[in-house]
Order: sequence, then structure tokens, then C-alpha cells
Amino acid sequence: QDPLALITGPCQLESHDHARMMAEKIAEACAPSGTRFIFKASYDKANRSSISTQRGLGMDEGLTILSKIREEFGCPMLTDVHSESHCAPAAEAVDVLQIPAFLCRQTDLLLAAGETGAAINVKKGQFLAPWDMGNVAEKIASTGNQRIMLCDRGTSFGYNTLVSDFRGLPTMAKTGYPVVFDATHSVQQPGGQGTTSGGQREFAPVLARAAVAVGVAALFIETHEDPDDAPSDGPNMIPVDQMRALIDRLVAFDRLSKGL
Amino acid sequence: QDPLALITGPCQLESHDHARMMAEKIAEACAPSGTRFIFKASYDKANRSSISTQRGLGMDEGLTILSKIREEFGCPMLTDVHSESHCAPAAEAVDVLQIPAFLCRQTDLLLAAGETGAAINVKKGQFLAPWDMGNVAEKIASTGNQRIMLCDRGTSFGYNTLVSDFRGLPTMAKTGYPVVFDATHSVQQPGGQGTTSGGQREFAPVLARAAVAVGVAALFIETHEDPDDAPSDGPNMIPVDQMRALIDRLVAFDRLSKGL
Amino acid sequence: QDPLALITGPCQLESHDHARMMAEKIAEACAPSGTRFIFKASYDKANRSSISTQRGLGMDEGLTILSKIREEFGCPMLTDVHSESHCAPAAEAVDVLQIPAFLCRQTDLLLAAGETGAAINVKKGQFLAPWDMGNVAEKIASTGNQRIMLCDRGTSFGYNTLVSDFRGLPTMAKTGYPVVFDATHSVQQPGGQGTTSGGQREFAPVLARAAVAVGVAALFIETHEDPDDAPSDGPNMIPVDQMRALIDRLVAFDRLSKGL
Amino acid sequence: QDPLALITGPCQLESHDHARMMAEKIAEACAPSGTRFIFKASYDKANRSSISTQRGLGMDEGLTILSKIREEFGCPMLTDVHSESHCAPAAEAVDVLQIPAFLCRQTDLLLAAGETGAAINVKKGQFLAPWDMGNVAEKIASTGNQRIMLCDRGTSFGYNTLVSDFRGLPTMAKTGYPVVFDATHSVQQPGGQGTTSGGQREFAPVLARAAVAVGVAALFIETHEDPDDAPSDGPNMIPVDQMRALIDRLVAFDRLSKGL
Repeated sequence: QDPLALITGPCQLESHDHARMMAEKIAEACAPSGTRFIFKASYDKANRSSISTQRGLGMDEGLTILSKIREEFGCPMLTDVHSESHCAPAAEAVDVLQIPAFLCRQTDLLLAAGETGAAINVKKGQFLAPWDMGNVAEKIASTGNQRIMLCDRGTSFGYNTLVSDFRGLPTMAKTGYPVVFDATHSVQQPGGQGTTSGGQREFAPVLARAAVAVGVAALFIETHEDPDDAPSDGPNMIPVDQMRALIDRLVAFDRLSKGL
Repeated sequence: QDPLALITGPCQLESHDHARMMAEKIAEACAPSGTRFIFKASYDKANRSSISTQRGLGMDEGLTILSKIREEFGCPMLTDVHSESHCAPAAEAVDVLQIPAFLCRQTDLLLAAGETGAAINVKKGQFLAPWDMGNVAEKIASTGNQRIMLCDRGTSFGYNTLVSDFRGLPTMAKTGYPVVFDATHSVQQPGGQGTTSGGQREFAPVLARAAVAVGVAALFIETHEDPDDAPSDGPNMIPVDQMRALIDRLVAFDRLSKGL
Repeated sequence: QDPLALITGPCQLESHDHARMMAEKIAEACAPSGTRFIFKASYDKANRSSISTQRGLGMDEGLTILSKIREEFGCPMLTDVHSESHCAPAAEAVDVLQIPAFLCRQTDLLLAAGETGAAINVKKGQFLAPWDMGNVAEKIASTGNQRIMLCDRGTSFGYNTLVSDFRGLPTMAKTGYPVVFDATHSVQQPGGQGTTSGGQREFAPVLARAAVAVGVAALFIETHEDPDDAPSDGPNMIPVDQMRALIDRLVAFDRLSKGL
Repeated sequence: QDPLALITGPCQLESHDHARMMAEKIAEACAPSGTRFIFKASYDKANRSSISTQRGLGMDEGLTILSKIREEFGCPMLTDVHSESHCAPAAEAVDVLQIPAFLCRQTDLLLAAGETGAAINVKKGQFLAPWDMGNVAEKIASTGNQRIMLCDRGTSFGYNTLVSDFRGLPTMAKTGYPVVFDATHSVQQPGGQGTTSGGQREFAPVLARAAVAVGVAALFIETHEDPDDAPSDGPNMIPVDQMRALIDRLVAFDRLSKGL
């Protein structure tokens, strides 16, 4: 088994300068432990709680920035896609296409993403059981693309709350595809603040540690230099200056978990 | 308040002949009680559990059939849309565009649907609280289109199970928009049969009666002449020859509920 | 089928005078529709959220008052029992022993209650599926006592919230025992106010109407002349001066539902 | 922080010989890692799913055996109590009284247990939020007994299923009392086999590992030499010959988690 990888970045792409600054800080946080990271940023938040919240830079500007960051830092890049027509251009700019949880059953999107040949990180819908993800993976695999990651980001538990069922990680791993745990969105409180989602940032490291102890290929953790002023997911992002300590600790658990 | 309306039809559009036969039987079932119905059929099941299940006739053939049925029967028509580009053509052929539950947070789809000026029936995501639907309606209303219906089709409750929380109907009604209860998909067992969803048909009339007693503008009930051989949603559809008795009974509850 | 019966009263027994006043007002509210009622009051709230909330008058004083109310009003009486040793004395004073939801799996309590020969109203645990109540009923029936009622008071749904699954009423009815719907505790928010439980009084009539439309033998609705100052369950009790209108409306639905 | 302790034993007390054999095997499994264990066995399964399943040896014989095992092995003993009158005699024979999850809100039982001065391990009800356990602990502490442990054994999640929310462990730890994770009952499927509860033994070590990574004072893991023939909880108990490897692994995670 490979050491833990990290999918990390600032949720929403804000500007080239901001992305570069975040990538630098992340690279610094990962270097001591030698942790490989995939830089994640969204150019369009297409499913915000409310019409009045910020959606982002849009595809053209967003993908341009992402491909520049890839050049400058040499790190693999991930972004999420919300429609079939975005898959091919996004796959030019980034290495991993991410299927949002709400869209994980949309056959056309899964096929369009799969057909690019890019790696696909598909989030488990909050409304799906872990064992239902086999059918989701098969839709992608039907394109001949087996570069699939299955990502848990919590399951609906009553209203405005998610719960992380850690039985789901080994259950999804039975598909043979690498499993990712999204510690950021698992502590989201969907719709919990009226027109935006709330979050419980203090539990992200707790659940991340549990996931690594259970055993995962990668963790997804969003970060920001000032989460309380971030344009999205602020309540559940980790301040970037806390990332190095967090990564070091998670890597220690990963080594123990995998016998590395 | 208006008497109960019915959104009904055979889940998936199978052929012009089949749709005509179903529309005839439905018209007969509704006539004795004078119940207005909106004919519902899908031309594309874009989010099936598994890649190997039937998706339907496709948009062009589907919309042609739907507009013919509308001409022949003079009844309003409803179909569901899964991408922005389908909204305008679908709005030519039908009167009501339906936003699927999984897609109820996709801003672009809501806006594209709203901009057609058609009536919009938006299903509450299984992952959303009833009070979160206000934000969803506002996205549509931001286009200037206020012809919005909010539809409950169950909420995630553990794995492979939905529950109908009838507090949600008056909660959604506080938005001022008419509320619909989907008795067919509320008894679905998502993913419950491995590669297809299961269902508990026997509970659809039970929940429909409860919803009408609580008070709704419309019920959504799918029907088929042979549910066990229907291409989708068979386990939760009502046999069409049982529809008249069911409608008559529901209308009696509606009259009592609304004091008509 | 018999017309709807009502289990009603002031949650906690406060004094002989208060119980008499409540019984009078309830009798007045039930008279116009000819609704039979069972007077319910608890002499000991043995499972309050917090140690610092009021528990009640205790068994001796409580049972004395209950038996006097029975004499004065000639109505059947119900109280809840929390330990084996209380069953026999309680069965002297009242007609129906109620098993609290948290205790519905305690074999000794079920047997002790059953052995009194009194009717038993057993609440479905918030942690149980409706079909699990068959085993609970069998424990009681093993004493030779078949006078059993199964009562739904909501099911755990996330934290501090209950949901009423109306599929549970016909499911429990398959046991052959009469089914009761508890509209008061189904809208409880357990632990939702820190050291006491909250509630959503406005939804009690909504869920009651749904239950009657589905079909139940009896409704359980607590009432008080001043719910906001009641010693327990205030947030979900119905003001007693609203009971007549509520009962009249529920009886109309019951007649329609049962074809009476 | 102290190293991880283990609460372990054969769910149901079967005989003196069986208990002695189990204690020997457990002592052997714990010795290499120097893990302290508390021997757990129940003399009465008072809340079985069905009336026709075995309840155990009863209090007199049970407590006699438990006190003999304590003498022979010198290990602390734990048993669960279901009524006030059992607390004092049980506290003579064992060191820790356990309050079952269904009974965690029964004030009299909590007080009677607290008044013995024994340590109390109180299980979080499947129907309670983690933050609701503060009120439960306060009931016990009102007796002057502060030797309280709070134990998570899963939370209701749909029907016949529990989920372990690992945010609950640090939430309960905020009370200041040591927190225990029950890996055996957290993988129970309550009522899942008709007249008995099912279980998912394969996930007990998974969840145990997650809990230790998050950080707990103790783990509760039931074990048996032949789980499939055990009189209760067979589907979720760990075979005793697998305990040493499991304990060794968990201790490694505990050391990392606590920096020992």
C-alpha cells in the first residue's frame, strides 16, 4: 500500500495569486513528512445553498489558473465538474476530475468524465449507502477508465447533519478502487445557517485521524489562510498554518495503520 | 383552496401507443371525481442505479410523443429535465418541468428551467430539510418565474430507506408555493435491490391518504398497467386499474381536509 | 371497527383538584362528538432529562387521586409504570398500564404488567422498527393477557429529533393488536432544550390528522390548561380549550377513514 | 493520560468454569502488551429481543461466580444492573456497575447505582445525542459518586441499524469523565434477525481502531471461544483466540494517539 496522499486546497479558486500562495503553503506543510498532495480548487460552486452566495471565477479563468499552478508547482491538480461539457476542457487543465456528491448518480456526467481518461474522484452521495457506490464506479468503468477513487463525505443523519460511518470505508474498498475520506465536508452542517451551510471545523482532524486508522488511500481536507473569511466552506476548513502539524500527525497514524 | 390535483403517468415513456393507452385509462379513473390530472412521463432516466438498466426513448422522440398526447387529450403534461440544454425544448412540449430531487441544488438547472416560464415542480432532495426548500424556490423565483411547486418525495433515513416527515408539508407551504406529495418515490427503497431500487407499493396509498389529510395541492402517483414489468419504478407504482378507487377515496379526504 | 378513542390528560398529575378540573374539561370537549376517552396522568416522571426537574406526586398519592377521578367521572384511567413492583398497585387504581418507550424491551416489566390482567399500552421505543413490536407484544401475551395496545411515539431521526413513519401504523396493526398514535410525544425534541425536552406543539394536530387518515384505534394527546407552565411536556401539549375543535375534526377524519 | 484499558468478557455468564476459562484466555491475551482489563459478564439479559431467548443464570448464582472470578484472577469485574434492588448486591461482587443503554435515563436506577459508591459505566442510549449524556452523568454525580464512565455503543440510524458518530467521543469527554467505546454493540443490528439481534463482527476491530485513534480511556469488546454458539451477541463478538493480535494492534494506536 502507498503512503497517505492528500487532496487539499482552498475550496473555491479566488485568484491566481491566492492559489499560488495556498499551493506554496501547502507544499511547505507537506514537505517534512514527504506527503504527496493533489491541489484542489473549484472554479464554480454550482450548487450553493442560496442564489445570493458567490459561485466563483467560472470555467475559462479557473482552468487557466489551475493549469498555471500545475506548471509552477508540478503537483497534480483536481477540480470538480458539474456538467458533461466541462469534462473535456477540465481534463486538459487538471489531473483529477471530481464528481460532486449530489451528482454521483448522473449517468451522463459519469460517462463524460470517464471518457476523458482523467482520474475520477467520485463523492458518495449523502443519500447513498457505501455498498451502492459499486454501481457508480461501474458506470465510470464502462468507459474503459479504471482510474477511479471513491470518496466518503458523510451520510444524511436527520436534518442539517451528516454522520461519518467508518464501516463505509472498508465496504467501498471491496470494489478494489482506492478510498478517500473527505474530512472537510463530513463535518458540514448542510443548510445549517439558513442561506449557507455551517460546519464543525474542530471535528475535521478527529474524523481524519479515525479514517486514517481505519485505512484510506487519501484524505481530502480543505484549507484556507483565513477560513472565517473564505467565500465558501469557511466553517469547516482548517487554517493553513495548522496543516503541517495535522499532516505530520496523520502520517504517523497512516504508517502505523499500513505497517509502513 | 383548489381541489386536489393529480400528477400521474407511467414513470418512463415507453411508446406513443403506451402513453396514449395510459392517458386514456387515467382520464377514465379521474373522470368520476372530476379530478384534474397532469400527465407525467420521463423520456430519459438519467440517474438510474446501474449503467445496465434502461434509460428511455431520449429527448427528441420523447418530447414528440408528449406533445402529441397533450394535443390528443388536452391535459397538461409534465416531464423531468436533467440538463440546462433540455429545458427550452422540453418547455415547448410540456407544461410543467420537473427538477429531480438529486438535482434540486443545481443552480444552473433551476435557472434554466425557471427562465422558460413553464411551471416548475421541484422535488425536495432526500438530503434536504423541508425548510431548506425556501432557498431552492428563491433560485427559481430569481428568474421572475413564480410558478413553482415544491414536492416531497421522502428523506434519507438510514441506508436504502426513505421516511416521509409530514411536518414537512406545512413547513414547505410557508413559502407560499403549492406543495405536492410524491407517494410513489416516498416508498422507494433506493438501491435496495442491488442494481435497482426496491419499493413498497402497499404503502403508497397509506402515505397519500396521510398527505391529503394534512393538506396538499397535488399528489404525485405513478401508475402502470403492469407494474411488475415496467421498465422503472415497478416496485412502487400503482396498477392503473386500481387508480379510480384510490382517487375517489383520496378526493373524499381532500374535501374534508379543505372543507370543500 | 370502533370509532376513534382518545387517551388524554395532563401528562403529569399535579393535584386532585387539577386532575378533576382537567377531567371535566376533557369530558366537555369529548361530549359533542361522543368520543370515548381514557384519562391519562403520570404520578412519577421517572426518566426526566435532568435530575433537577420535577418528578411528580409519587405512587401512593398519585394512585389515590387517579382512583378518585375514576370514581367521580366513570372514565377509564391510564398511568405509566416504571418498575415491576408498581404494576400490581397501579392496576388496582387504573384500567390501563402504560409501558414507557425507553422500557419497552424490559422483559420483567412487560411480564409484571401483563400479569395484572390490566390492559397494556406499550409505546414503541424510539430505537425500534415497527416490525420489532411483535416480539414486545409476545412478551406480554406470554402471560395470557391479550389486552395489548401498541403505540407509536416517533422514531429517532438524527439528534434531538423524532420522525413519525406512518408506514409503521399498518405494520404494527398486522400483529392484530389495536394501534395508538401518540401525537404529543411524536413532536417532542428530546433533550432539545439542554436540561429539558423541547417540542413542536403546532405539528401535533397535523400528525394526528395523518394518523387518523391512515387508520388508528386511538390517539394519545396530552393537554393542559396552560401548557407553557406545565411541569412537563409543556412545549408539545395542546391547550385544553382547543381540544373540542381538534377532536371534532379528528372524528370527522376517523369516520371517513373507517367508513362509519 | 492512562494507557487504554479493556472491558471484556463473554457477554453472558454461562458457568463458573466457562467464566474461569474466558478470564484465563483474556489474561493471556492482555499480558504481552500489559493491558489492564475489567472482566465483564452479565448474569441476566433482561431486555432480549424475544421472550424465547435465554436470559442467564440469575443474580444469586451470577454474583457468586463473579466474586469468585475476582478472587481467583485479581481483576476488576463489571456487570450490568437492570433494577434498583440489584445495585447494592451487585456492588458487593463487582467493581463497576454498568447501566444499559435503554435504561440510561431511568433516574432511580442511576441514583441507586451511584449510591453504592462503585464505579459506574453508563451506556449512551441509542436515542440520545452525545451532549445529552452530561445530564445523565449529573444524575449519578448528584449522589456524590464521581466514578463515572460514559460509553458510546452506537446511535439509531434508520431501522435495525446503528451508526458510530466519532464526534461523540470528544463531545462526551468534555464532561470530564472518561469515555469508553463499545465496539461490540456498535456493530449490532438490533432486531435484525427477527427474534434476535444481528451483528457485523468484521467491523468491530475497524471501529475500535477508529475510536482509539480519536482517543478513549477504554474499549468495551465482548469475546467468546465460539461466538456462533454463544447464548447472546454471537454475531458481534470477537473469537477469543483473535484477541491478543487485536489488543496488540489497538495498544499501538493508543500509544500513538496519547503520545505514550
